[in-house]
Amino acid sequence: MLYLIGLGLSYDSDITVRGLETVRKCKRVYLEAYTSILMAADQSTLEKYYGREVILADRELVETGSDQILEGAKEDDIAFLVVGDPFGATTHTDLIIRARELGIPVEAIHNASVMNAVGACGLQLYQFGQTVSLVFFTDSWKPDSFYNKVMENRKIGLHTLLLLDIKVKEQSIENMARGRLIYEPPRYMDIATAAQQLLEIEELRGEKAYTPDTPCVAVSRLGSPQQKFKAATLSQLAEYDSGEPLHSLVMLGRQVHDLELEYLYQYVDNKEEFKNFVVEDQEFFKPPPYVPAEEVDSD
Amino acid sequence: MLYLIGLGLSYDSDITVRGLETVRKCKRVYLEAYTSILMAADQSTLEKYYGREVILADRELVETGSDQILEGAKEDDIAFLVVGDPFGATTHTDLIIRARELGIPVEAIHNASVMNAVGACGLQLYQFGQTVSLVFFTDSWKPDSFYNKVMENRKIGLHTLLLLDIKVKEQSIENMARGRLIYEPPRYMDIATAAQQLLEIEELRGEKAYTPDTPCVAVSRLGSPQQKFKAATLSQLAEYDSGEPLHSLVMLGRQVHDLELEYLYQYVDNKEEFKNFVVEDQEFFKPPPYVPAEEVDSD
Repeated sequence: MLYLIGLGLSYDSDITVRGLETVRKCKRVYLEAYTSILMAADQSTLEKYYGREVILADRELVETGSDQILEGAKEDDIAFLVVGDPFGATTHTDLIIRARELGIPVEAIHNASVMNAVGACGLQLYQFGQTVSLVFFTDSWKPDSFYNKVMENRKIGLHTLLLLDIKVKEQSIENMARGRLIYEPPRYMDIATAAQQLLEIEELRGEKAYTPDTPCVAVSRLGSPQQKFKAATLSQLAEYDSGEPLHSLVMLGRQVHDLELEYLYQYVDNKEEFKNFVVEDQEFFKPPPYVPAEEVDSD
Repeated sequence: MLYLIGLGLSYDSDITVRGLETVRKCKRVYLEAYTSILMAADQSTLEKYYGREVILADRELVETGSDQILEGAKEDDIAFLVVGDPFGATTHTDLIIRARELGIPVEAIHNASVMNAVGACGLQLYQFGQTVSLVFFTDSWKPDSFYNKVMENRKIGLHTLLLLDIKVKEQSIENMARGRLIYEPPRYMDIATAAQQLLEIEELRGEKAYTPDTPCVAVSRLGSPQQKFKAATLSQLAEYDSGEPLHSLVMLGRQVHDLELEYLYQYVDNKEEFKNFVVEDQEFFKPPPYVPAEEVDSD
């Protein structure tokens, strides 16, 4: 059996009781170590906590060496640990499909991930549109496919969760060219970089998917003891010191409910100023509704 | 301290280790018992598992008697247990705001909820739009505010998660009128009812947010030992026997990736037929993109 086990967001003890019991009975335990990190625990903490050896699985192992992970999984129990929930990244779907091809039964043990825990910032989860990813820009590569998606969400009034880039076990171009297996130190995008990149693309595209005054919520170290939220405009966040990773960013949609706004006030510097920015942003980006027919009822 | 603790989806052991440790040290333990249920455990199972008395909190207690829940929470630890994640329902945000007004510190211990665990069906979470709720229709009350939202999601190609109604501790109109505290047996909307209601509203509105041939995924007993997925069209699902609760429904968006489709094939009756429905649905509902400018790059 292949068990995909979500570890949640931060502590070693964020694993579920069922997850922990399962890990402890597995023959081999892999930890997926490239799409996210557990903020308050590392490999050795986990090994001690589980009482088991934990094998770090990098992108190469998961994407091209999956048969190695799955070896013997028809007879033995293998655990594949994922920070957050196992279905957070496409790469794990590949592993499941491969397991099924090999006739290996698969069971998932779910856990919290940023995709649902972001509700802790006070914005309602059902008001979020599609999620986008923001990768580190280089001088020559500034991918902006997120821009249209943010625009689509905002046109229909929805909030957007922006997942910020994580670079783990990356080689420099020079080292890669020379075939040297030397890895750069890990990099985690902070809020200021994310906000600056967003503003840079708006500057380039100029289609007003958002403005420097668009209100956002900086989500830092979600679920950890140092969790922090900051509600401010994009230009204010471009100068915000968000501290240690991990971070995500939420851009507000037009349909901000009073209850959401009230909740956000505890994270702002100036309540009146923030409220004005929200109202302005709503006015600024108020397209006609797509469906002109009147609702016959509402729930 | 008020602890809001997510219980996950099904088993008593789906609580996190940190959650369980916290419950066991709390003076009073409430279980929110009206927005969802834990499929493989009930109040007495949980009491035994925690070694604590568990107080059921109905809507009335949470929404109008929150000060009773919060009594003494400045000095003592109080646990408020929520199936799924604590931030799944607006009603819990109210409780947090009230706690903060009273100067009571609040900590959330997150867990999986349908909002992220639905990724187990094989559709990618970041491709979901806003979430909608479908309530039981009566002869005179057929709320269809979900319809515009489904339309908005589908126009930009996104999947829609539809949460299906749960009626717990409801009074009949007659009993309510006579002031009799007699409650109806709990009702959980099944897949066939959801599909029929969707088709009824499309019939009434006729704006083609979807058609009887629109492909969907029935999500039954997510995270439980009897978890089951079924991929079929809306009209096929209108006759589907989905079995015991709980259920959710996902309506596919236009942007179905090959990897998603490949994953769904394991849940279909006829692979070729399903594929044709997906292609037809994509063709049928292919609006011009909202943002005509070409992307300069893509990631």
